[in-house]
Amino acid sequence: MIRQKCVLLALLLAMPLSAAEDPDALQHRNAVAGWVQAHRQAILDELSVFVKLPNTATDADDIRRNAEHLQGLLERRGLEVQQLDVEGMPYVTARLRPEAPHPDGSPPTVLFYCHFDGQPVDPSRWTVAPPYEPTLVGGIDDPEARLYGRSSSDDKAPIVALLAAIDALRAAEVPPNIEARFIFDPEEEIGSPHLTTMVERHGELLTADLLIFADGPTHQSGRPTVVFGSRGIVTVTLTVYGAANALHSGHYGNWAPNPAEKLASLLASMKDADGRVVVEGFYDDVELLSPVERRAIDAIPPVEPGLQHDLLVARPDGGGNTLQQLINLPSLNVRGMASAWVGEHSRTIVPATATAELDLRLVKAIDPHEQVERIKAHAAKQGFHVVEEEPDAATRRQHAHVVLIETGHGTPAARTPMDTPASRALIEAVQRAVTVEPVLMPTLGGTGPLHQFESALGMPVYGVPIVNFDNNQHAPDENLRLGNLWDGIVIYASLLRFPAIGRD
Amino acid sequence: MIRQKCVLLALLLAMPLSAAEDPDALQHRNAVAGWVQAHRQAILDELSVFVKLPNTATDADDIRRNAEHLQGLLERRGLEVQQLDVEGMPYVTARLRPEAPHPDGSPPTVLFYCHFDGQPVDPSRWTVAPPYEPTLVGGIDDPEARLYGRSSSDDKAPIVALLAAIDALRAAEVPPNIEARFIFDPEEEIGSPHLTTMVERHGELLTADLLIFADGPTHQSGRPTVVFGSRGIVTVTLTVYGAANALHSGHYGNWAPNPAEKLASLLASMKDADGRVVVEGFYDDVELLSPVERRAIDAIPPVEPGLQHDLLVARPDGGGNTLQQLINLPSLNVRGMASAWVGEHSRTIVPATATAELDLRLVKAIDPHEQVERIKAHAAKQGFHVVEEEPDAATRRQHAHVVLIETGHGTPAARTPMDTPASRALIEAVQRAVTVEPVLMPTLGGTGPLHQFESALGMPVYGVPIVNFDNNQHAPDENLRLGNLWDGIVIYASLLRFPAIGRD
Repeated sequence: MIRQKCVLLALLLAMPLSAAEDPDALQHRNAVAGWVQAHRQAILDELSVFVKLPNTATDADDIRRNAEHLQGLLERRGLEVQQLDVEGMPYVTARLRPEAPHPDGSPPTVLFYCHFDGQPVDPSRWTVAPPYEPTLVGGIDDPEARLYGRSSSDDKAPIVALLAAIDALRAAEVPPNIEARFIFDPEEEIGSPHLTTMVERHGELLTADLLIFADGPTHQSGRPTVVFGSRGIVTVTLTVYGAANALHSGHYGNWAPNPAEKLASLLASMKDADGRVVVEGFYDDVELLSPVERRAIDAIPPVEPGLQHDLLVARPDGGGNTLQQLINLPSLNVRGMASAWVGEHSRTIVPATATAELDLRLVKAIDPHEQVERIKAHAAKQGFHVVEEEPDAATRRQHAHVVLIETGHGTPAARTPMDTPASRALIEAVQRAVTVEPVLMPTLGGTGPLHQFESALGMPVYGVPIVNFDNNQHAPDENLRLGNLWDGIVIYASLLRFPAIGRD
Repeated sequence: MIRQKCVLLALLLAMPLSAAEDPDALQHRNAVAGWVQAHRQAILDELSVFVKLPNTATDADDIRRNAEHLQGLLERRGLEVQQLDVEGMPYVTARLRPEAPHPDGSPPTVLFYCHFDGQPVDPSRWTVAPPYEPTLVGGIDDPEARLYGRSSSDDKAPIVALLAAIDALRAAEVPPNIEARFIFDPEEEIGSPHLTTMVERHGELLTADLLIFADGPTHQSGRPTVVFGSRGIVTVTLTVYGAANALHSGHYGNWAPNPAEKLASLLASMKDADGRVVVEGFYDDVELLSPVERRAIDAIPPVEPGLQHDLLVARPDGGGNTLQQLINLPSLNVRGMASAWVGEHSRTIVPATATAELDLRLVKAIDPHEQVERIKAHAAKQGFHVVEEEPDAATRRQHAHVVLIETGHGTPAARTPMDTPASRALIEAVQRAVTVEPVLMPTLGGTGPLHQFESALGMPVYGVPIVNFDNNQHAPDENLRLGNLWDGIVIYASLLRFPAIGRD
């Protein structure tokens, strides 16, 4: 099995067979896994206490409490911790020095990235338990059991997994033998607006041979996953205007322009029936995948039929392309839409405004700003007068169709080639820790600030996600599958004994 | 001026010149107006106390408190009051017997309809004052001053105006000389679901020669207004489905079907660029206006340019037709729309569902049920599988586009001919009370339960609205212009001395 796996990888990446067959590696793996098995309750308790802390990035007090708590967890393990105030945002960094000799002499330095903030919550929509009351559904012996709570998987589980990996390695007497550095982001879910400043000011704390993002879900197959990049994102808010105020739909219906209907028309004009974006130039700058990346995508197990069944999707968008192919394209998503009221609060009015929130996911080489400009040009082509600030009365009296287009923080995509020495060493490290073929994804669908590190620190960036894909990340009832946590600790332990990075 | 006015009306309706030139009528009018002038503070206080009572129809306790309070106001004036429990809904009726001889011998009986419930409120959207804290902006001497509060105009002002009219007539020693009956509806804003039962059970309390709705705003010109019917309404809720739950827009964007985008396409397909509904058959059953009704519409002062300016409407819907013409056509209005979240709560997900609330206004002869069927047929034509109950998993796995279409309570439209004896007597009564030409509207844009009375009690139905058109009815910051209240009392006083109804 191990041989077969390595042959496949070798074919895919033309890499040498290596430590995956190392009997020491197998022994270390088993020792770590045994320790995890014996300490599941304590690990879960550590995660639960952390999840109890509300962590919306916009609440400074909550975020500060999370930073303090995290600092305690790290210092308890003897890491050198610095809590940095970056324009009011408490970034936390930590350093773990090698505790054993590296077999290849000079040990590599690996920077790990996690974030401890979470998406906002609407408690009324959480059905299993309130968002900050971590609740285990199922027994601790059952790998399918789930811990519910905001950030139970995104992204507090990876933090706790890294800490447990240190504990496990030390207990197994194969302690970390590399220099590990850590950056814990307090504002990832709002686009890490201070991260660039943080890196500029404190780059010396972050110097490393490579960066590993400990964030995001594994591939839907549940297999261990290595990602070589992530999509970027830019958010856009569209607001369409009707009359100056809401009007009685009886006295004005047929006469008063309806902003919800105008917004609907504008949104409907952006895609074809397959969900392909018809905004001019939307796909123009896409940097094509390399042959290695295309082969990697082809090797990823198909998950679409199962997903369609579980998610009740009769026909996905994308015109028959696979999910992995589609993730390597930019997307346009209406993530929210509102005009007046629905449900019990609805009333018989012509609404005054209608709003849509879009997120535009980006792939390598697409500029966030230019992508938004394409949306603006499209709206103008549909007959809208596009403004970037709240339109005044004169503007609204002059133009029948007015849309306010506001742009949020933009993060470009990143994509590291899969066949560099660092990439090969990472694949080897993950391989040593697992018993099934890992999934190698050129691009994670989600967005982390990979591009910012790549451009600011000039190091290759990767992701090693560990949490379950069906974790309701960013949504109500976020959860973590326990089996993913236990396996993740073993993988992260292997990364803390990272192999030597060869030369090209 | 009076002669000129009557000549115009005579031309319009071929009615005889009559009491408008009666010097007694003018004297009575002035006496009533003088009393109102002297008692403005007390009248306003009575309204304010009433507005302080929250009155959403779905809150049984609140509605009961309003009914009790109203009963007290009526009994204080010596009316015979009955509070009726109609399947839990406290309808209030009252009777005022003639207090002076009628000049034409046997006095007519006039039934007045008002409602004391109000639309739901979202206090966060009220900018002047909280919805149940009536607040006067401006001095009591200023007719342009406004009283803000839910139901300050819809529909508590007409109730208080009718009570003040009784007080004024008595004080002026020209007391009511007709039999006046009253029905006060506790559930108009939710479509009066128990009104039919109420009328069936207690019709003997409601027998009259005609029914006058004391509800709704005057014409936008601010002129006194008589309406001869009202549009009907039926509400429809559309829910479009995406995947079984919200999905991360990074990991699934481009693949997961987006219900907000599908809903947008469906809504966009329902109208052309002029706002004309393109749903098949939508206008088929419209009963054409009579020549008298068409002339009445042509005589209504144009208000569109002023409305466009005040309401910031560069180009209204309706392809160049006047507001009055458009009100005599059925409408389709997206009154609310929602999918996931917008603003600070928005997050990067593909929503699981998207909902639009529609109201379909109806004109005479359009059946509510059939109008909804046309919407369903239209959705089916757009490729949607239409269901009337929450679709199960199998249905969603089978159909790429599923829409749940739920139908609310429907009320047909009503339209009384303008040239009957009762119509002529009503026009005369209003004319006696006012100094400018009243606006005669074949159809009010809004909806009252006129049709229910017309069909259940077989009496002609009218509306004599008194409140300002720009009252933010059904919306935040509902308000009443004080001048409308003072003038309305004088008009209602004249209705309480209703002229004899002739024969055809």
